Amino acid sequence: MAGKKIKTLSELGEFELIRKLTDDIILRHPGSRKGIGDDSAVIDHNGFLTLVTTDLLLEGIHFDLTYVPLKHLGYKSVIVNLSDIYAMNGIPLQITVSIGISSKLSLGAIEEFYKGIKLACNQYDIDLIGGDTSASLNGLTISVTALGTAQSQQIVYRKGAKTGDLICVTGDLGGAYMGLLLLERENRFFKADHGYKPQLDGYQYILERQLKPEARKDLGRTLMGNQVKPTAMIDISDGLSSELMHICEASGTGSRIFADRIPIHPETKKLAGHLLISPVVAALNGGEDYEILFTISPEDYSRVQAMEGITVIGIMTEKTEGHLMELADKSTIIMEAQGWNANQRWAGL
Amino acid sequence: MAGKKIKTLSELGEFELIRKLTDDIILRHPGSRKGIGDDSAVIDHNGFLTLVTTDLLLEGIHFDLTYVPLKHLGYKSVIVNLSDIYAMNGIPLQITVSIGISSKLSLGAIEEFYKGIKLACNQYDIDLIGGDTSASLNGLTISVTALGTAQSQQIVYRKGAKTGDLICVTGDLGGAYMGLLLLERENRFFKADHGYKPQLDGYQYILERQLKPEARKDLGRTLMGNQVKPTAMIDISDGLSSELMHICEASGTGSRIFADRIPIHPETKKLAGHLLISPVVAALNGGEDYEILFTISPEDYSRVQAMEGITVIGIMTEKTEGHLMELADKSTIIMEAQGWNANQRWAGL
Repeated sequence: MAGKKIKTLSELGEFELIRKLTDDIILRHPGSRKGIGDDSAVIDHNGFLTLVTTDLLLEGIHFDLTYVPLKHLGYKSVIVNLSDIYAMNGIPLQITVSIGISSKLSLGAIEEFYKGIKLACNQYDIDLIGGDTSASLNGLTISVTALGTAQSQQIVYRKGAKTGDLICVTGDLGGAYMGLLLLERENRFFKADHGYKPQLDGYQYILERQLKPEARKDLGRTLMGNQVKPTAMIDISDGLSSELMHICEASGTGSRIFADRIPIHPETKKLAGHLLISPVVAALNGGEDYEILFTISPEDYSRVQAMEGITVIGIMTEKTEGHLMELADKSTIIMEAQGWNANQRWAGL
Repeated sequence: MAGKKIKTLSELGEFELIRKLTDDIILRHPGSRKGIGDDSAVIDHNGFLTLVTTDLLLEGIHFDLTYVPLKHLGYKSVIVNLSDIYAMNGIPLQITVSIGISSKLSLGAIEEFYKGIKLACNQYDIDLIGGDTSASLNGLTISVTALGTAQSQQIVYRKGAKTGDLICVTGDLGGAYMGLLLLERENRFFKADHGYKPQLDGYQYILERQLKPEARKDLGRTLMGNQVKPTAMIDISDGLSSELMHICEASGTGSRIFADRIPIHPETKKLAGHLLISPVVAALNGGEDYEILFTISPEDYSRVQAMEGITVIGIMTEKTEGHLMELADKSTIIMEAQGWNANQRWAGL
């Protein structure tokens, strides 16, 4: 960025800001094995690894309480953190939850939020071990930190992908974003006419993807059971395009994905059709799917092919080849780095 | 609280709210050795302990950017967390820092904040290993999590105090609160008349206590060097009175402290005199001193007496005797449970 004058934080974007703020950070303790720059940090205690990740969820930026039930919000606040531990091929064990509570929330509302937190803890076998609670003058503030563990030889970073490795994703993509668009549309209609009854029928799946996402708890076990260790891994919180570029940047590669191989749910396609949006664009730039993007060595191809719910969508290329998406007619388009997060969540700055 | 109808969160107070929300939490993993209810949580990996603590700092609740320099705020955000690790007799090693950035802050302002974070990391030998960065619609939001370590036999909880144990504090108390009152007063004068020049001369010490507090990094080493292991320990973030009651509640004891033994700095006394406030009340109910309150077995008395900067202020009593403070004329007053935090930070709810 040398020589370029930065005027506002939104011009800079989240990733550049983090780089600017943390570029000069050195790690002093040998136990701090991995710092900023992956899904989780890694702390080494004599070979026993602790994974640490944290996410901030702010009212008006990450959620809108007019249509997000508090119990779902509590659940999701946990899930987004667990996902970062699974994305290192680790097992989450503990969380801390801090909340800043605005005066418009009742005790009952906060209890609903905690019901969601506790439900996620039950489902994912997590201990809630601490946190902080405060009043907030300015909307609900949520900060969750997750701790997990992994064996040293099992851990997967963003940086291990090689040219020729295959690019895989779990589940399907773009659904959470289409769920958000649906909720926002119905909320607009409702605001304009309070007699309006929201039309959500037929979109159960994408609404759940947005409101009550799940983290890929099963993936680590499936991979291990099939003796596959990914070469690189990341969770898809900001859209496929931006996550793939994180892996490529960390690994020093380019990438080529095939548009018609990207897994997309029928409900995602249906709503995208109604809204005149390309479902592939929703998968590339939409966020919050919390699926896992990973790369494997080509020799693991047949084993991964046999696993349910995993799709091979492309191949890692030389860095000089850049980031390409091949369409059905074999033409290619250059992928852009901008994730959904950068567009949406920084709009306020 | 059975049978009592709670109307608002501020009636409930922070401690009761936490109790209500976390009462039914069970810890599933044997590694989760200590959950909610102490300065830090404790995770056990085959005998190697990790301490975890987290604090939320919200604009308008915990700080006012009209008179708090961002570099100091960054520094303090780290210190308040390290203090919770020292208060377990542990050694902090890593932190994560999450911030929600409001649009009124420039890149330069955020860089100042991080200068403070990094300065604290340098001074206390801490690695910044992760975090999250987001836009915020509603003021600056800061969430820091600290991780540390302790040997199993060195760790000190709130719960170990026994009747007859002596109550000790490090440093002096009430200074940070008087510093806050001074800043608030001068800020009011300045708001009323922008030509006004703030009068801060002669109060360097209490201003530093408020704006740039330090954590008691030295205490653990001093105690260990003198072969003293406290029976209970807590950091003084919410005022002596409320912290002492936390120890008594966890340990099942009462307490008696001696008003004229509470260490108070001359500047604290001077400003308290000007403002017609009892400096003892500032020490009891003021917060943010980040000193350590601990109890020792009576047989360690002479060893603790010999340590610089530690004052014995009272004795643990039977639970039935309650919480008393003895004045110079030998009369006693009953101490109240309300800490500064509960009054001040919940006022918004």
